[in-house]
Amino acid sequence: MKGFVFHGPGQSAWEEVPDPAVKEPTDAIVRVEAVTVCGTDLHILKGDVPEVRPGTVLGHEAVGEIVEVGGDVRTVRPGDRVLVSCISSCGRCSYCRERMYGQCRGGGGWILGHLVDGTQAEYVRVPFADLSVHALPATLDSKDAVLFADIFPTSYEVGVLNGHVRPGDTVAVVGAGPIGLAAIATARLFSPERIIAVEPAPARLEAAHRFGADAVADVHEAPRQLVADLTDGLGADVVIEAVGVPESFELCTRMVRPGGHVANIGVHGRPATLHLEDLWSRNVTITTGLVDTHSTPALLRMAAAGRFPTAQLVTHTFPLRRMEEAYDVFAHAATTGALKVVLGDGQHETVALRTA
Amino acid sequence: MKGFVFHGPGQSAWEEVPDPAVKEPTDAIVRVEAVTVCGTDLHILKGDVPEVRPGTVLGHEAVGEIVEVGGDVRTVRPGDRVLVSCISSCGRCSYCRERMYGQCRGGGGWILGHLVDGTQAEYVRVPFADLSVHALPATLDSKDAVLFADIFPTSYEVGVLNGHVRPGDTVAVVGAGPIGLAAIATARLFSPERIIAVEPAPARLEAAHRFGADAVADVHEAPRQLVADLTDGLGADVVIEAVGVPESFELCTRMVRPGGHVANIGVHGRPATLHLEDLWSRNVTITTGLVDTHSTPALLRMAAAGRFPTAQLVTHTFPLRRMEEAYDVFAHAATTGALKVVLGDGQHETVALRTA
Repeated sequence: MKGFVFHGPGQSAWEEVPDPAVKEPTDAIVRVEAVTVCGTDLHILKGDVPEVRPGTVLGHEAVGEIVEVGGDVRTVRPGDRVLVSCISSCGRCSYCRERMYGQCRGGGGWILGHLVDGTQAEYVRVPFADLSVHALPATLDSKDAVLFADIFPTSYEVGVLNGHVRPGDTVAVVGAGPIGLAAIATARLFSPERIIAVEPAPARLEAAHRFGADAVADVHEAPRQLVADLTDGLGADVVIEAVGVPESFELCTRMVRPGGHVANIGVHGRPATLHLEDLWSRNVTITTGLVDTHSTPALLRMAAAGRFPTAQLVTHTFPLRRMEEAYDVFAHAATTGALKVVLGDGQHETVALRTA
Repeated sequence: MKGFVFHGPGQSAWEEVPDPAVKEPTDAIVRVEAVTVCGTDLHILKGDVPEVRPGTVLGHEAVGEIVEVGGDVRTVRPGDRVLVSCISSCGRCSYCRERMYGQCRGGGGWILGHLVDGTQAEYVRVPFADLSVHALPATLDSKDAVLFADIFPTSYEVGVLNGHVRPGDTVAVVGAGPIGLAAIATARLFSPERIIAVEPAPARLEAAHRFGADAVADVHEAPRQLVADLTDGLGADVVIEAVGVPESFELCTRMVRPGGHVANIGVHGRPATLHLEDLWSRNVTITTGLVDTHSTPALLRMAAAGRFPTAQLVTHTFPLRRMEEAYDVFAHAATTGALKVVLGDGQHETVALRTA
């Protein structure tokens, strides 16, 4: 089969790789119908995630059809259409038992396209299939559904739930890329008083409006002041970091009110400065997190009911064989306007491909 | 009357000051029977708390007798023996209504010995008396009770409650000064599996043992390794910072398990480095806080029932007039072995004075 292989920093190719096979009785083999590229994949290509070995097929998000299962798999069978979650879970370790699947110590966690071959291929082996794929409602289109492999549960759990968004709150979302936009969409589930998006790119500020932000602030134009003006000088109840650079995190800690929450979603490669000299007395809660995906079933039900503007997130679609081009378009979002790129193999005819 | 006055960095004196008088109908005047010195007072003397104006009487913890009340005071009257809390609260602002009295926006919060004259004097004016003093059980000695003006509620609320200590947890407390020791004593209320104290001073490690720590680790001798060895390599469920320097905070973030809590109690004068490149994916919750004192009534009931080893915290007592000497003893804890120093005016005969 073909797959997108990491060959070390700056080197990758869509190329022939061995077909995956069931190795453990808890494995499933999935034929990939839709797959996407994540900002984390770009980090891997840059060499920021050193534990990814050269030769690994990347990708940790997919929709596909089960084609084979190991002898211990009970909840899915060949022919089922499933979401392949970015998080695999053994279901048995202390973390899985507390539904913290992202921290699985039994061989799961974020492993696809990281520690084992991933989803950016024609087929993928999914370990711990019973707990790591989700059967999909027939009404949910693959290119919408694939957004629930990572970005929607990540934005919801690590941003909205960790941030304890409550009705009536002022929520600031720093960064209006795909993760930030999904955070805006899922924050609305809790009926906040207002959502303020902070983002430098005009096109993304526009998108933030469409996703439900009530106020938008160019990050270069005193977003702290806008938040202060809207909150009687106090700051936001919840600030969600959806960028992943120190400057953005530090801005978040300066926009939160005393007693408020800063929920970090961003993937960081460098330390940030924590201004404890200001924060020690302000009753601030700061959270970090890798998604656990405990919310995926509920999010999928809501998605099937049309609760999320998923179609607006997918700006570009490609057939699988144009993976390298899709990476290019995604990596140069500032010029291409890309939010999420979705790839599907026309051969399976399940993804309605839109040309970029 | 006499009071301990801050005259700018490095300058202070026990000297004659005007008697306090009722200024607002919600004020009470309290004759001080027992007062203590806080690490924060030392910060003020160094000039670390620039909003304290020269001429301010320091001190934010006291036990005393109400001698006068304003016309709007309803819950206490002259003759009552009360605890003067480090936090005053207006009771009316949005923060007080959410019991976050430390963040009071109506003129309260930490004001005594900070923004208005404090308790290190023969008499003190207590604003918002109805909500800022607590009637004391007759059985509770003044030198024990005064510990509930600040250090016990601070350790309990900002350390133990913010850190979400639960039965069966491994709790690490970094810093075994008075605040750390009170955190150990109050963490035990939640029946953790073990409490590990991390502290460089041998005498304080001894004290940590007496207060209920199960393991103690010299901060210079790989405390991370001890915690890892005791927790199957995971780290502590809850880590409480009770020092207030960047190095200590950073150690806390390296000792916590994935999914765990770091509760900062320390008063910080400098920023710390937050290693988001390691922490972003670890589901860590970090909290900061000024005490709200919402727990003070419950803590006082428990103290009256003998639940806390308060007597062991008070290492030195002095008459009020020896305030400057008490500061010296407290500031040089490394050589004097001081934990808390308590001062009481022998004239009132309510404090059993122990010589150092």
